[in-house]
Amino acid sequence: MTVVFVATGPDYDQDHFLAEVAGLDQAVFIGIDRGVSRLLEAGLPIELAIGDYDSVPLAVQWQAEAVAQHFIRLATDKDQTDTEAAIEWALNHYPDQAYYFYGIFGGRIDHELSNLWLAYQPQLQDKLIDMTFIGLSNRLKFYRPGTYQISPLPDYDYLSFIGLTSIKNLTLTGVKYELDQVDYPYPIALVSNEFISSDQDMRLSFSHGLLMAIQSRDAG
Amino acid sequence: MTVVFVATGPDYDQDHFLAEVAGLDQAVFIGIDRGVSRLLEAGLPIELAIGDYDSVPLAVQWQAEAVAQHFIRLATDKDQTDTEAAIEWALNHYPDQAYYFYGIFGGRIDHELSNLWLAYQPQLQDKLIDMTFIGLSNRLKFYRPGTYQISPLPDYDYLSFIGLTSIKNLTLTGVKYELDQVDYPYPIALVSNEFISSDQDMRLSFSHGLLMAIQSRDAG
Repeated sequence: MTVVFVATGPDYDQDHFLAEVAGLDQAVFIGIDRGVSRLLEAGLPIELAIGDYDSVPLAVQWQAEAVAQHFIRLATDKDQTDTEAAIEWALNHYPDQAYYFYGIFGGRIDHELSNLWLAYQPQLQDKLIDMTFIGLSNRLKFYRPGTYQISPLPDYDYLSFIGLTSIKNLTLTGVKYELDQVDYPYPIALVSNEFISSDQDMRLSFSHGLLMAIQSRDAG
Repeated sequence: MTVVFVATGPDYDQDHFLAEVAGLDQAVFIGIDRGVSRLLEAGLPIELAIGDYDSVPLAVQWQAEAVAQHFIRLATDKDQTDTEAAIEWALNHYPDQAYYFYGIFGGRIDHELSNLWLAYQPQLQDKLIDMTFIGLSNRLKFYRPGTYQISPLPDYDYLSFIGLTSIKNLTLTGVKYELDQVDYPYPIALVSNEFISSDQDMRLSFSHGLLMAIQSRDAG
């Protein structure tokens, strides 16, 4: 099963979203603030509606409260972001599932970065590998030290690796630009690598640090 | 004087850009790849046109070559990004000026992050304080340890501080949510703080680490 979070970022398109989630076997949907409107418009069942609803019309809030399995209204002034609160709830109710995030990119760069910066939070370290951030031309996953196979997504041309920390022994095989046990003393952005074949996985390994792998394509 | 870089990111609007640079005392303009088209369309003099021009029409390349003071064609396969090459050139020719970057946000998240990740590069550490990344609803600056005053921009509602590393002794005064010598063992995103007054500077200080300060507003 998959827990699908829909947040408020502008890098989101309803048709793209519906096409993506149609392919999921089973899913529960969590709407974050204005993301709740997106789920309501999509006609999807809402497991949790959560947010401070600062900029959400009252009619939408009432509708969400009526149809959502769970409805949580957060304070406007708070230490936690709405997205952090949504993840905390999900970790309590659906600890073992894959977490997909839509509406996570675009718009205010501080919001976008605060989403990516979740990867640094100690309480999320064990969950990172299950989290995928999805935009219209980007699909991002987080990796901790280990060895992984990554499959090419159809229609995504590029594969980038971006360190969130220093990285040790980074090895990339099955890609156009291979690496063999390279150390990076500061966070690096290795962009626009490519799979060597659209039907062959690549292999990633490293022994220290925290890394994002991003499959991306140029906007259509 | 200001060195104004125009890159290819979609978070860019020609009217917004022209209004911004109209306020500059003196400026030289550097077009990066498709950013060259933006400068040509704006009718601005081009000091440097640089890029691999992979996705730039030949007619635009010829026009840029004809009118730019300096024209550099980069290889398509290379270790450096076009933006890194542009900054390297600027550091050689205009080492002491303020650097403003437009077209730096939006679109492919790997491109956007590779721009922000410039802040980690050792050879740019002394230049960071002179660099400003500007989008339609964001204005981002980099800070190394020290004490700074930051002035509120008109029409920007929020002020966020995002650590690129661990941070020590972070102190914020003159803002809604103040801090007094707080340590953060891992990179944090402190979003949606606010100036206490639109005509009063705030004060930022910290003793260790690397920090971004972002003034932002909700999209209009």
